[in-house]
Order: sequence, then C-alpha cells, then structure tokens
Amino acid sequence: MFPVSRRSAVEPFHAMDVLAEANRRSDAGHPVISMAVGQPAHGVPSAAVAAARAALTERIGYTDALGTVRLKVAIAELYRRQHGLAIDPKRIAVTTGSSAGFNLAFLTLFDAGDSVAIARPGYPAYRNILKALGINVVEVPADAASGFTLTPESLERAQAKAGLKLKGVLLASPANPTGTVTGRAGLKALADYCSDNSIAFISDEIYHGLTFAGEEASALDVTDEAIIINSFSKYYCMTGWRIGWMVLPEALVRPVECLAQSLYISPPELSQIAATAALTATAELEAVKSGYRTNREFLMKSLPEIGFGIASPMDGAFYAYVDVSRFTNDSMTFAREMLAAVNVAATPGLDFDPEEGHRAMRFSYAGSIAEIEEAVGRIANWLK
Amino acid sequence: MFPVSRRSAVEPFHAMDVLAEANRRSDAGHPVISMAVGQPAHGVPSAAVAAARAALTERIGYTDALGTVRLKVAIAELYRRQHGLAIDPKRIAVTTGSSAGFNLAFLTLFDAGDSVAIARPGYPAYRNILKALGINVVEVPADAASGFTLTPESLERAQAKAGLKLKGVLLASPANPTGTVTGRAGLKALADYCSDNSIAFISDEIYHGLTFAGEEASALDVTDEAIIINSFSKYYCMTGWRIGWMVLPEALVRPVECLAQSLYISPPELSQIAATAALTATAELEAVKSGYRTNREFLMKSLPEIGFGIASPMDGAFYAYVDVSRFTNDSMTFAREMLAAVNVAATPGLDFDPEEGHRAMRFSYAGSIAEIEEAVGRIANWLK
Repeated sequence: MFPVSRRSAVEPFHAMDVLAEANRRSDAGHPVISMAVGQPAHGVPSAAVAAARAALTERIGYTDALGTVRLKVAIAELYRRQHGLAIDPKRIAVTTGSSAGFNLAFLTLFDAGDSVAIARPGYPAYRNILKALGINVVEVPADAASGFTLTPESLERAQAKAGLKLKGVLLASPANPTGTVTGRAGLKALADYCSDNSIAFISDEIYHGLTFAGEEASALDVTDEAIIINSFSKYYCMTGWRIGWMVLPEALVRPVECLAQSLYISPPELSQIAATAALTATAELEAVKSGYRTNREFLMKSLPEIGFGIASPMDGAFYAYVDVSRFTNDSMTFAREMLAAVNVAATPGLDFDPEEGHRAMRFSYAGSIAEIEEAVGRIANWLK
Repeated sequence: MFPVSRRSAVEPFHAMDVLAEANRRSDAGHPVISMAVGQPAHGVPSAAVAAARAALTERIGYTDALGTVRLKVAIAELYRRQHGLAIDPKRIAVTTGSSAGFNLAFLTLFDAGDSVAIARPGYPAYRNILKALGINVVEVPADAASGFTLTPESLERAQAKAGLKLKGVLLASPANPTGTVTGRAGLKALADYCSDNSIAFISDEIYHGLTFAGEEASALDVTDEAIIINSFSKYYCMTGWRIGWMVLPEALVRPVECLAQSLYISPPELSQIAATAALTATAELEAVKSGYRTNREFLMKSLPEIGFGIASPMDGAFYAYVDVSRFTNDSMTFAREMLAAVNVAATPGLDFDPEEGHRAMRFSYAGSIAEIEEAVGRIANWLK
C-alpha cells in the first residue's frame, strides 16, 4: 500500500471529532447538549427558507464561479448600509463557505515556503490549511499583554524571533476562540504595517454582526488592499449551507476566479438563493443575537463560579474560552470525560492553541439559554 | 500592492468563461443554447426535490466531515446492487462535489514535486488543481494509438520520456471530453501496474451510469487499493448541489477526514439529504439517460455532416469531442465567434488539451434534442 503525503499529517479538528462522538451518543439516546461547535441553534431565517423552497421547482445548476450577480449586488449593498462603503460587486467573490475563501486566499497569495502569521489561540483550520499548502505558519501569541490580538509590535517580535519576513498576516475580529474585537484603530495600524512591509493582510470577518462590546469595524473601513473573508454561517445561521464571500482587491479577482473555477466550479446555487434572502432578515437575526447576549451574560457569571476562569475578552463571536487548569492539565481527556459523564460537549483548547490549550476549553453559546443553564448545572455537579 | 503567488498562475477553465459570457448574452435577451458545460438540462429528480423540501423545516447544519451515515450507507448499497460489492460505509467519504474529492485525494497522496499522470485530452481542473498544489503534471497522450485511454505501456513511455517515476495516475472512465470507456480488463491492467510500481491509482467515475457502448466497470471491481471519485452531478442531475463521494482504502480514511475537517468542515447538509433520495430515482434518471442516447445518435450523424469530425469514441459521458480544423486553428476564437454569431456555446478544446486542443471543440449533449437540433442547424448555416 502506498504511503500518505507528508503534508496530510495535519492535526484533527478536535471540535469536529467531539461533534461526531456527541452525534453518536445523541443517536444512541443520550441527552447530549452540544457546546462544542460554532453553530447557531436557530435555523436559517424564514425568508431564506421561503426563497429556497420557491427555487426548488427550478433547475439548480452551476453559477458563475464567483457566484450570482444578484447575491454579489446584495452583499455590496450590505457594505453600503452598514459601513457607508461603495464596494464594486465585481470585487466580491461568493465562496463555498469561508473554508473556500481561506483556501483560495492562501493559494492566490502564497507559495510553498512563504510565512504567514496567525494569532494563537486561533481557529485551527487556518493552521491546517496553510500547512497542507506548504506554507510556514507563524503563531503569534495573542494574550493579555497584546490585548488578545495581533499588533505591528507583536508581528515585529515574531519575525525577529523566527528570523524571517512575513508574506501574510491573518487576523479574525471578532476572534474565535478568544472573542477579541479589534477596533478600527487596531485594524488600521495592522493594515498600514502590512502595506508598508508588502505583507498581504487577510481579515477574517465571519463573526461580524456578533459584537457585544467594543467597536466592530471591517478592514474595508481602513484599506482597499485587504482580503476580506466573510460567511453566512454565523450571524445568518447558515452553517450547513456552506456559503460565504470574499471582498478582494481588484487585481486579485481574476486569479481567484481561475482557481475557483477548477477547485470549486461554483458555490452551491440553492445556498446562494437562500443567502440572498437571508440578507433581508434583520429583525429575525437581531432577535437571535439578543439571545446570545443573554447566554453570554449568564456564562460570564456562572463559569467562574464553577471554577472555569474566563481567559479572554468575550466581546464578540459566541464563545467562552476558559481556563480549566484547576481541574486538568489535559483538555482532550477532560472533554471526553465530560461528554461521557454528563453529556455536555465542548471543545478542548488544544484545537486553538497547541502550546497552552491543554488547560483551556471553548464553550459555544450559540444555543438556547435553557440548554446552556442545564449544561452548566450538569458540569457543576460533575466537578463537585 | 503585493504580487500573487506563482502557483495561482493556472489557466482559466474556458468552459466556465464561455458559460459566464453565455449567461450574460442570455440575460440580455439573446436565444442562447448552451452546449458548453457538462450540465444536465433535466433538474434534480423529483424524489430529491421532495426530500429537500421536507428537510427545509429542520435546521440545516454541519454534519460529520465525511458526511451523514445515512448517505454513506445508501452509497454502499449502490455498490452492492450495481457491482455485487460489499463496501464498508466507513470507507465512503461524502464530499462537496467531486471537486473536493480531487483536492482531498491529491493533498492526501502527494507532496509538492511528486509526479502524477493524467490523460491528454482530459478534464482541465485536474491539471489546475495539481499545479496549484505544486504537483508535477505528466500529460500522457490518450489518442487513437492508445485506445484513447491510459495503459501500462503509455505510462512506461511517458516516464521514460520525462525521466521520472510517477507517484500517481488518474484515469476517468467514462472520460471527459473523449467519451472513452475503459473496461474491466483495461482497469485491471492499470491497477496491477500501479500496485506493482507503488503508484497511487485514482479512478474518476463521475460519469458512471452514462455508458452507451462498451463495458462500464469500477476500479473497485478489480482492486481495493484505488481511490474512487464519484459525483451526483452528472447521472443524478445535481450539478448545482455540489455533492459527490469518494471510496477510500481503509488506511486513507482518517487522513482524508482530518484534511476535510479543516478544508471543508462538512459537505452541504441539504445536498446530502437530496442526494440520498436521488439514489432511489432510477426510473426518472433512466428516462433522462435515454434522452442522451437520442442526442448522441443525432450528433454522431449530424456533426460529421457539417464538417466537424468525431475525434474520439463517444462511448460514455455526454460529450462530442470534434475536430474543427477544417474551419479554424484557434478554437478559443472560434468558440467566441460562434457564440456571438449564432448564440451557441461550446467549449474550446484548449481546455482539455493544451497541445492539440486549438483545433478541437467539445459539445455537451446533456440538453434536449430540440435544442441540440436547433443548435446544429444554426451552426450549419453559420459555417456555410
């Protein structure tokens, strides 16, 4: 039998493994509460359901590789409404989830051997996709000292320490798992630094719309040179539809299109139709967000009470990243045991931070307050 | 502005560019007939529409990264029914179209610098994805002399000529654009050769179900070591749903799963639900296939009559690959002019064959006989 490639030796995305195990337990009749995966309990907005239902009678086919004009125009309108920005719809690339956006951005911008900085802790798929593409991952600590974000200073330090020059920087705001919101000034400092140093700046904005404290800004507010990645999965409650978008500097549109044609053909058409409708569902989605706000307040109070210290800001996204070192030095085993003992699934910090994640866990609060209260109650009893 | 990567310099997929231009003309009110893209005119089977409609009231979310158990079991049952094979559903990976299958297979099996053989002419995305991943593409002529397929002998010749040793071989049967069907004996010869030489064998079976002459076999009929790529796009008429599958040797399941978790999260759930239902729609789909048979017979007769010589077998898939050298030595310009003059879209051969495709065109016959007759009539008048 032939061997597998060296580059396929990526870490599993433990959250997905925990989800699979939680699904197995749930199918077997256990009362599982999942706080493991970043997935809204609320379904897709009803306007999107209606649009999808109506479209089911049509042929669902390939669209242009970068998506339908209708959706691109609707996304451009969103930037006009929310940011007062006039974005040419031609700069928008609809993608098969933000997953496709990251892959396309990395392939378009970086060759094997290039170095790209990401925050640690951070979203594990960044690291895994970059590694699979032969790109050198520079993990820059995003801790209390750096305001849990990336800064020109932390990037300078990281380059000096590793003895290399970055080709790219990727920052999420709001960030997963830390909840950090990097405001306009922070984004501008980063964008300027990247521009001055010929570094590509990728801004992951998939948690936009989910900011509870601090100032939510897009990199587009401060530069036209950034690559924006966004998604309908989080604010718009469309995880399983696999639909997202990029906003690209004009010069990158055609290279991204050529890669997208071969790597994805086109994003799923029904998801594009539903997403176009979801952009109009503001009232329904703001009500969902208000539920997250309630959940967040409950967790900010109750998690420390049961001994899980809040490790980072919780200003945005829908995660509590907590320090579990009072109970364990092995968050993987802790997650497995907690699931087996009290049927609560959460994600081991190791997913997000290979160095210090063994004593952290991430809880998603995108579910209902009833489930979250029940989950915390069960954990409290188990820890006693 | 930062430069793009070297590896993003892939060729456009001209068929998608022709589609985009055809869509623009169509939107502007021109009576466009598209024979450019490999897309059934028939919509998804009604059983799949019904299943999708019913599921729209549920939350559509992430599934396991390699797909739902229900769909994997249904696919395994397909192999039992059609091939008499007992495939463990755990060996099946549901993917976001065959596009994801190719990308995952290449990443799992090959490192940058490895050499992989594909047939020329062949599906352009193979070449583009391989190149983007830093893999060396060895294009092996699949012409009359080699029966329009790959053989141990043609692979030996290609390796000797290029002075290298292959790490992988990718063969499609039925093949796009040639229509070649490689039977059981041909597949076994290739599989044995690959096994003897520690070469990974990837079998593209996305046109299975669409064989009109010759013997349709799966690589699974002759080996357990091949990587099978399949799709719901063609026989099942589900292009825009972006859903396909792989059958993997057991040892590859976990590496593929880890990469899929980070690169795709999961395939679109609604598409998985619809695909599970589509597997039961045999009567409807066989009626669609019977329409292709009619189209094929019409084209085999009428295309040579208007001066387009049939260049390859047309035994399977739904393409006529024709020699247009009586009219042009530049198939790109020819395709553009034909679209502008008579509103018929077809794909320049350059997509499939960078060396000799300048005098070939591919016509998809997955539409209705009325449209195809009309298209050939228009082209005949234009060529006069």
